[in-house]
Amino acid sequence: MRKKLVTNVGQLVTPLGGKFRSGSKMSDLSVSEEVTILIERGVVAGIGESSDFSGARDEAEIIDAGGKPVLPGFVDPHTHFVFSGYRAKEFQMRLQGKSYEEIAREGGGIASSVASTREASFSRLKKESRKRLKSMVRFGVTTVEGKTGYGLDKETELKQLKVMRELGADTPLDIVPTFLGAHSIPPKYSDRREEYVNFVTEEVMPGAAEREAEFCDVFCDQGAFTVEESRQILTEGKKVGLTPKIHADEIAGTGGAELSAEVDAISADHLLKASDEGLHLMKDRGVVAVLLPITAFSLKEDYARGRYMIDKGLPVSLATDFNPGSCFSESIPLLISLATLYMDMTVEETITALTLNAAAALDRADQIGSIERGKRADMIILDAPDYKHLSYHIGVNSVERVIKGGETIWKRPGPQF
Amino acid sequence: MRKKLVTNVGQLVTPLGGKFRSGSKMSDLSVSEEVTILIERGVVAGIGESSDFSGARDEAEIIDAGGKPVLPGFVDPHTHFVFSGYRAKEFQMRLQGKSYEEIAREGGGIASSVASTREASFSRLKKESRKRLKSMVRFGVTTVEGKTGYGLDKETELKQLKVMRELGADTPLDIVPTFLGAHSIPPKYSDRREEYVNFVTEEVMPGAAEREAEFCDVFCDQGAFTVEESRQILTEGKKVGLTPKIHADEIAGTGGAELSAEVDAISADHLLKASDEGLHLMKDRGVVAVLLPITAFSLKEDYARGRYMIDKGLPVSLATDFNPGSCFSESIPLLISLATLYMDMTVEETITALTLNAAAALDRADQIGSIERGKRADMIILDAPDYKHLSYHIGVNSVERVIKGGETIWKRPGPQF
Repeated sequence: MRKKLVTNVGQLVTPLGGKFRSGSKMSDLSVSEEVTILIERGVVAGIGESSDFSGARDEAEIIDAGGKPVLPGFVDPHTHFVFSGYRAKEFQMRLQGKSYEEIAREGGGIASSVASTREASFSRLKKESRKRLKSMVRFGVTTVEGKTGYGLDKETELKQLKVMRELGADTPLDIVPTFLGAHSIPPKYSDRREEYVNFVTEEVMPGAAEREAEFCDVFCDQGAFTVEESRQILTEGKKVGLTPKIHADEIAGTGGAELSAEVDAISADHLLKASDEGLHLMKDRGVVAVLLPITAFSLKEDYARGRYMIDKGLPVSLATDFNPGSCFSESIPLLISLATLYMDMTVEETITALTLNAAAALDRADQIGSIERGKRADMIILDAPDYKHLSYHIGVNSVERVIKGGETIWKRPGPQF
Repeated sequence: MRKKLVTNVGQLVTPLGGKFRSGSKMSDLSVSEEVTILIERGVVAGIGESSDFSGARDEAEIIDAGGKPVLPGFVDPHTHFVFSGYRAKEFQMRLQGKSYEEIAREGGGIASSVASTREASFSRLKKESRKRLKSMVRFGVTTVEGKTGYGLDKETELKQLKVMRELGADTPLDIVPTFLGAHSIPPKYSDRREEYVNFVTEEVMPGAAEREAEFCDVFCDQGAFTVEESRQILTEGKKVGLTPKIHADEIAGTGGAELSAEVDAISADHLLKASDEGLHLMKDRGVVAVLLPITAFSLKEDYARGRYMIDKGLPVSLATDFNPGSCFSESIPLLISLATLYMDMTVEETITALTLNAAAALDRADQIGSIERGKRADMIILDAPDYKHLSYHIGVNSVERVIKGGETIWKRPGPQF
């Protein structure tokens, strides 16, 4: 693998204040002008002035950044990208004001995704999921978390994990698999909740751990799993090596934030209704708050209290929540617009949330999420004069080149005129 | 120019109910499956089944739509894309809650765009504007209106028009130029408003008409031009052949909607504070209501009453309002999301608003805005199983190919994996 030099970097923008940087703030970015970056074996080997690398220039492949901003590749730490079947009809019904119950009666809701995903062949599921990753790459995403949870049976949950493992091997992206067997109680278990929880922990979870799932997640909320059930699932997960994550306090404040601190979760996600006390506990335990504003936009709900959490010192991350139901969107530009316009986060905090803190939510802050010596050379070049255009250019993708492990995996072309 | 056949069209989606279709509604779309489209000399020459065109197949260039939806190219009937200088700093100040006055004191506001646009050389202004058109094309836009108004002096207003004329010739897009000399009162005229209005009508307007401006627009609102001043400007414009358009009732309901009906404007735009009476008069005169929800999103204002207007029978269109200040966004996907999620417009109405009614707002509904025999072959192919994904796929661009006058002007590539 040839050395590479990223030359003519107009702004090298990288977060200083992430979860693991005590004494620094999420708003602390390092912005250096006229920088050159040396990449060796897919890793950042040096950052300096052009003259520092004159020796390497002859042998290295040159990536000319054209005087533009270079940032770490974005990390999307909460998605459900492995599913089959679309729910456009249900989305229309929701726009018409139909209730969740009406939609469910018409065959919508999560049950519809579960049915299609069970039915889909492995190759079809993999093909559909791969296509979605391509769209994410265009938005500058270089690492993607993905959850199971559209199987709710052993075979399909493991099929989803296999899709993720193979896509991690077949594509240049890093795919981080999370086991979410406790996404919903399947209808046939509705009167036997305890049995389903035991099924998940005893029958499916060990296989999920073998299939290289890294995290165990649970939808802990009103109408989903109780705090007690969630505690059982996450505790059993830890025993087989799965680090806890929680869908917490989205619909009602049932105590998900508190539980995330109790079980030492790596992240608690959603948090629209999280209590002050729960957030305080999260802060003390260093649980990353993963906020999902596109879901709130899509469901026309209030946004999570991002400003409050940052002011209280929580490590805040942002993710798309890409899924076929509540949030069929992998749009990083929309995510940035919502965070900066509607959650009172600054563009600098938003960048940290999408890079270093997102990496922390996936236990990878030592490897990715910033452009520093020794970290993976995952970076994006923006077609903009300044990194602030990420928020100023509302809803428009500014990414013109995506570099993963030193290799260019996407470059935006034309049109030619 | 070779004949073309667009084959394997999964859904041919085209509006039936636009401004000029009495008895039809904006929600009326024609959706035909398994269609083939014949294009001759840049115009739709036939629509039918594959077998209808077996004779043409040998000589024609084949454009395989891959079973996907094909729609008319989008028309963006309200933009300010010809400017120099960005206002990202001002956007940050606004996010921090700084007032309009504070921003103006720091050198922001429209005065900043006027200064940069005056200063920019013709070639620089053209280059910057051309780049913005490329971004619009990626969103499926094939016809763009553009306004002057960042000159407010004769030389720069005409420079903006010349940029648009040359870009209309140099690029495949249709560029529709609007003269907006009455965008703002320049500071040096602040005590001599009447003199500025006379300057615009007597000194600049005749040159604008010679430079092929088609429309005359005025920012009729509180803090901008009064109804009386606007009437004078639009009436003088008509005398030199410029059809009236109005920025109406955005900040306050000063009577812009009423004036648009009185002067037979082709459109009244913004309309956040338009009165019921004004809207009623617009309906009677067939004035198109051009709504600009991304501006409201960007300024955190309420949205215009799109649902009410449609229910009252007004022809409603949507536009981006792309400009460097209040709305630095040319994002059609965001526009669609806001219309469908936050303005209670259906996806079908939104499509009509962005095609046939947008064409009507530019007096071109006989040439573009739908896919019909005899109309320009301006169309887009979506990378989606159904046209409803335009709203379901929130904030994400579904356009994978853009055809203008029968020629493919953009095709979305990879990434390859």
